Amino acid sequence: MTYCLGIRLNAGMVFLSDSRTNAGMDQVSTFRKMIIYEKPGDRFMVMLSAGNLSVSQSIRELLQVESLKDGPGDPPLTIWNAVSMFDVARVLGATVRRVNNDDGDALQKAGIEFNPALILGGQIRGEAMRMFHVYSAGNFIEATRETCYLQIGESKYGKPVLDRAIGFDTDLYDGLKIGLISMDSTMRSNLGVGLPIDILVVRRDSCTAEVNYRIEPGEPYFQDLRERWSAALRAAHISIPRPPYRSSN
Amino acid sequence: MTYCLGIRLNAGMVFLSDSRTNAGMDQVSTFRKMIIYEKPGDRFMVMLSAGNLSVSQSIRELLQVESLKDGPGDPPLTIWNAVSMFDVARVLGATVRRVNNDDGDALQKAGIEFNPALILGGQIRGEAMRMFHVYSAGNFIEATRETCYLQIGESKYGKPVLDRAIGFDTDLYDGLKIGLISMDSTMRSNLGVGLPIDILVVRRDSCTAEVNYRIEPGEPYFQDLRERWSAALRAAHISIPRPPYRSSN
Repeated sequence: MTYCLGIRLNAGMVFLSDSRTNAGMDQVSTFRKMIIYEKPGDRFMVMLSAGNLSVSQSIRELLQVESLKDGPGDPPLTIWNAVSMFDVARVLGATVRRVNNDDGDALQKAGIEFNPALILGGQIRGEAMRMFHVYSAGNFIEATRETCYLQIGESKYGKPVLDRAIGFDTDLYDGLKIGLISMDSTMRSNLGVGLPIDILVVRRDSCTAEVNYRIEPGEPYFQDLRERWSAALRAAHISIPRPPYRSSN
Repeated sequence: MTYCLGIRLNAGMVFLSDSRTNAGMDQVSTFRKMIIYEKPGDRFMVMLSAGNLSVSQSIRELLQVESLKDGPGDPPLTIWNAVSMFDVARVLGATVRRVNNDDGDALQKAGIEFNPALILGGQIRGEAMRMFHVYSAGNFIEATRETCYLQIGESKYGKPVLDRAIGFDTDLYDGLKIGLISMDSTMRSNLGVGLPIDILVVRRDSCTAEVNYRIEPGEPYFQDLRERWSAALRAAHISIPRPPYRSSN
């Protein structure tokens, strides 16, 4: 399994991805699930991927060269010349469909579901930051002020803390911290999600990564966060009075 | 959806179940998912059910009359004469298989999965308390000292708090409290799980319910618990220092 999280805040964006990949329990390995597409000063885009690794890797590779033609006379639209992140998401959707056309039938015959899930976020100079969740059919939804985070992969364990703590006006590094707590909750409850964790922070209108870091096992801040969070949860439930219920029948 | 939780502690057992049932988003109703099978002073058993409601209701009904014959000369084994909870779980497994035999094919033709999931816990006088998770194939696993809680239905949102807070020696009412926190986390993140919540507490060797209560919307203790837990989580993540990471490349 995989857990990836993208948070679109007023101040910028935060991306987190675990790196555990498994084909059965006895074939577990580490792959980076975060990739950057960048044209310095002009556009900065990050993609997180979940699902079958061969499919994700094909999409990542082909996205760099995919082009769309809206009409016969139109110039080919690519992620490098698109003037909006919406158009970049359309190119990504087309890439997903192309990989499905190429590999989908053969995968299905082998009993493998075509199930990529992608988070694509970034900024093109002149436009606001935008973030999308692209589905296996190539369609997509966009994160909004009201729902400012997107998850792919093993998303349920880490959702309660996001639902309680993340808002559009959350500070960028508080967003990263809450994202790490969400990742920790997921790793504790699901062996298929594991360290190292890749994190990336990009501030609004900067078009470059302010943090691009890999958290390895034993890294002191993350270890401290995990211990503090555990202790705080224990203290939190201890501080709540015991239920007063006795039988009503 | 559904969320049901059974916790087997040294001091006794705790059962919780939500009551939301839906057939599509526009047909949402309230059904009790907890049932008691009791022979006062002799045996006290509780069953929680998830999955298709018609299947669960058939199982609940038929379990009362189902019997198993291990050999040709053996007397019929029922939940009322079984001398161990293991045998009661076998009778429940047989009941699940009978309902699958009766209804499984017709359900499949209608595109409905035969997917019951059941938690069965209790005590027969003279034996220890035991708790089982019975699957749709009629097979089952038992809760142990190491893994002392069982969940069915929408189990992921509420699992992190259990993994951190529940142990075999947890106090009975702390167990109930943590179960309620787990239920709250699930309800907040999934609309398919909702109030009222049925709760039941049974102390070891008592063979009767110490608490058998329905928490309705607006019930003061549960409302207070939800607010305190939210506030404690907010305080918990605020108390953790912000990440120190800056770009490493």
